[in-house]
Amino acid sequence: MRAVELIERKRDGGALSAAEIDFLVQGFTVGEIPDYQMSAFAMAVVLRGMTAKETAALTASMVASGERLDLSRFGRVVDKHSTGGVGDKTTLVVAPLVAACGAPVAKMSGRGLGFSGGTLDKLESFAGYRVDLTTAEFLTQLERTGIVVTGQTADLAPADGKLYALRDVTGTVPAIPLIASSIMSKKIAAGAQAVVLDVKVGSGAFMKERASAAALARTMVAIGVAHGLAVTCELTDMEQPLGMAVGNALEVKEAIAALRGEGPADLVRLVRLAGAEMLVRGRRARDVASALARIDRAIADGSGLAKLRELVAAQGGDARLVDEPSRLPVAPRVEVLRAAHTAYVAAIAADRVGLASVRLGAGREKKGDPIDLRTGILLRAKVGDRVERGAPYAEVHAAGRASDAEAIELVRAAVRWSGARVARRRLVLGRIASR
Amino acid sequence: MRAVELIERKRDGGALSAAEIDFLVQGFTVGEIPDYQMSAFAMAVVLRGMTAKETAALTASMVASGERLDLSRFGRVVDKHSTGGVGDKTTLVVAPLVAACGAPVAKMSGRGLGFSGGTLDKLESFAGYRVDLTTAEFLTQLERTGIVVTGQTADLAPADGKLYALRDVTGTVPAIPLIASSIMSKKIAAGAQAVVLDVKVGSGAFMKERASAAALARTMVAIGVAHGLAVTCELTDMEQPLGMAVGNALEVKEAIAALRGEGPADLVRLVRLAGAEMLVRGRRARDVASALARIDRAIADGSGLAKLRELVAAQGGDARLVDEPSRLPVAPRVEVLRAAHTAYVAAIAADRVGLASVRLGAGREKKGDPIDLRTGILLRAKVGDRVERGAPYAEVHAAGRASDAEAIELVRAAVRWSGARVARRRLVLGRIASR
Repeated sequence: MRAVELIERKRDGGALSAAEIDFLVQGFTVGEIPDYQMSAFAMAVVLRGMTAKETAALTASMVASGERLDLSRFGRVVDKHSTGGVGDKTTLVVAPLVAACGAPVAKMSGRGLGFSGGTLDKLESFAGYRVDLTTAEFLTQLERTGIVVTGQTADLAPADGKLYALRDVTGTVPAIPLIASSIMSKKIAAGAQAVVLDVKVGSGAFMKERASAAALARTMVAIGVAHGLAVTCELTDMEQPLGMAVGNALEVKEAIAALRGEGPADLVRLVRLAGAEMLVRGRRARDVASALARIDRAIADGSGLAKLRELVAAQGGDARLVDEPSRLPVAPRVEVLRAAHTAYVAAIAADRVGLASVRLGAGREKKGDPIDLRTGILLRAKVGDRVERGAPYAEVHAAGRASDAEAIELVRAAVRWSGARVARRRLVLGRIASR
Repeated sequence: MRAVELIERKRDGGALSAAEIDFLVQGFTVGEIPDYQMSAFAMAVVLRGMTAKETAALTASMVASGERLDLSRFGRVVDKHSTGGVGDKTTLVVAPLVAACGAPVAKMSGRGLGFSGGTLDKLESFAGYRVDLTTAEFLTQLERTGIVVTGQTADLAPADGKLYALRDVTGTVPAIPLIASSIMSKKIAAGAQAVVLDVKVGSGAFMKERASAAALARTMVAIGVAHGLAVTCELTDMEQPLGMAVGNALEVKEAIAALRGEGPADLVRLVRLAGAEMLVRGRRARDVASALARIDRAIADGSGLAKLRELVAAQGGDARLVDEPSRLPVAPRVEVLRAAHTAYVAAIAADRVGLASVRLGAGREKKGDPIDLRTGILLRAKVGDRVERGAPYAEVHAAGRASDAEAIELVRAAVRWSGARVARRRLVLGRIASR
């Protein structure tokens, strides 16, 4: 087998066998197939695509490139993943709630990049919180507390890590087979038996169009099925940010509020949806209705909040912050944006708000950049809300950077107004799921 | 400027500016842009193409990556190039003829690869012939003898050399803008003011279809025009081998015969065509008719053959072989293939004959492989010829390799027969030229 012949076949629109894909992936992982061949192959995949069979094989090869956790002794483990958006703190709320309902939550999360925030960054708002657990620590904590949220360990799907780094610098990120296999290989390697996916659609998401988001969802479901996993994909709106808070400590505060039953409507809606699905897929609830009732109870009785406290403490974070969120990192300056006229909010461009958060230091321009946990944007209105003249519609929490003024302008420009009444946005756009 | 953004633009079907292409090419040449980015870019070009403007800019950047010879003191220098085929020894005949007619011939040639033979390999049949002249030696010899045929010097278009090596291993060879700019950048850097190109079409050529060959020809003419060069492209048939001989010393013998006025009809036709065009483009002849008359005279009076003798001697080769070709390297075994029935030759698959020559050791599987100068195939009939039962239609000149039998079978399988009369193949399929 010669790599160049496989590249040529894909270039010409042909399909590769599972053995051929495995030859490329394993050769690349051990360094026998050089970066320059893999990047040419990836570009051919971007422009020529992959069949469902090839995509499943690619996923299997990436799983096989490293260890695969066996979590079967914990019962049916359900993982949850979002393709990323602006203000998406769902994991911080749903993971403790589901764990409080008795389903083990073993989650490996990522860092933020560009306008997409990352769960690990947000959790580091709890001073001391460790995101670098070893596999042994991961398993021990899951055993003891029923919940763990940490970074991906290097021994899981190393081919994916290496391929992703290469795709990032060669313009070969946007290919559904590559995105889908990257996500799913990590979930499968991490031991999930079911996965609940949230595919974001809109200006603040990787997928701008519903059609491509649906294609990604279908591909991930097909990969799951090929690997014996139950998969649910919700397609949800990311034209405006999720919830009101964008920025790390600000989002943690909003997550704590949600666990106290004081979350913004769209966030709560999404949390209940994902949480119920996780309980059903994890076979901890008979049906969605009973699952929703349990999620609601875990909010009402404080057991979800207690589970977050447990999680933070178990991973070395300052758990008192869960009860005293005002002691979380705070930005020194708050610029309040007020409505020039009484009007309805017609749109809040999620990409601009996300970019504003990057300018404020809350997000990264490129991997490895440090971030500021304190800064961000706190919306005071969402699409459909009426704001009186002079009333605040957003706060910009800044730390005195040169780019603060640009961030403020971005937030201002993100909001479109309407004299006439505007409907609220639909949050859930679709659902694609395995049986 | 960031390489990844330029790759993304090409991936999405956009065009790059001359400055952006130059950033990529110069960055790649000096090693600032890594192979893995350039190969992804090349794959995007294969699948998305380049505009005429981009292709001209790419050529200019590759020329600018190294030295550019100034041959203006020699008058108008015309170069000649063939895209490669099976049995194509045209340069060995036409270069001495044109030089004998008073036009300086300064040619940098290549090695053979796969079923395509290379002029340098053939010339090495003259024991001692040097193909590694320095630029200074190149110029001195051109001054003294009016003819030089050597390998490309490393200081001309180094970006092309580096890019070609990368394309070769990443499945990114077959893109007309990349092929055209590779050929033309070398011609321009080598100081040509006019170029006569022979684009081969057929199973034994890189371009299998007339349409793609014509597209390549048009692209090369456009590049030439953008750089102020006169360019003529002939599209010629490569469904069957050119002439009767395939293999290094065998082809040299045929070239010597052609210079003596005893060449096979198709080779002589092509030599006259290319030679006349070179004289006209080099402004050494008023029109094609007078140019043809001069070429014919250089054959008839032996001045072409004398020029080949001069060339071989000047580059350190054994010039006596020009007059005693029977002393050129000879294969120890000759298998004569005879017709099973009296019939007309309907086809001689050039690719199979070329592959047979590789199996006999006369060609390379991959770069750097050693070759056997002695071996090859000598056809005794061409398409349209009638062969009597039991008469020879081909000779296989072998040196006792394990793969000899396979080569013989390939030659046998290459020939198709017809009971009915078959027309000879048209040699010249088209012509695309600048004014």
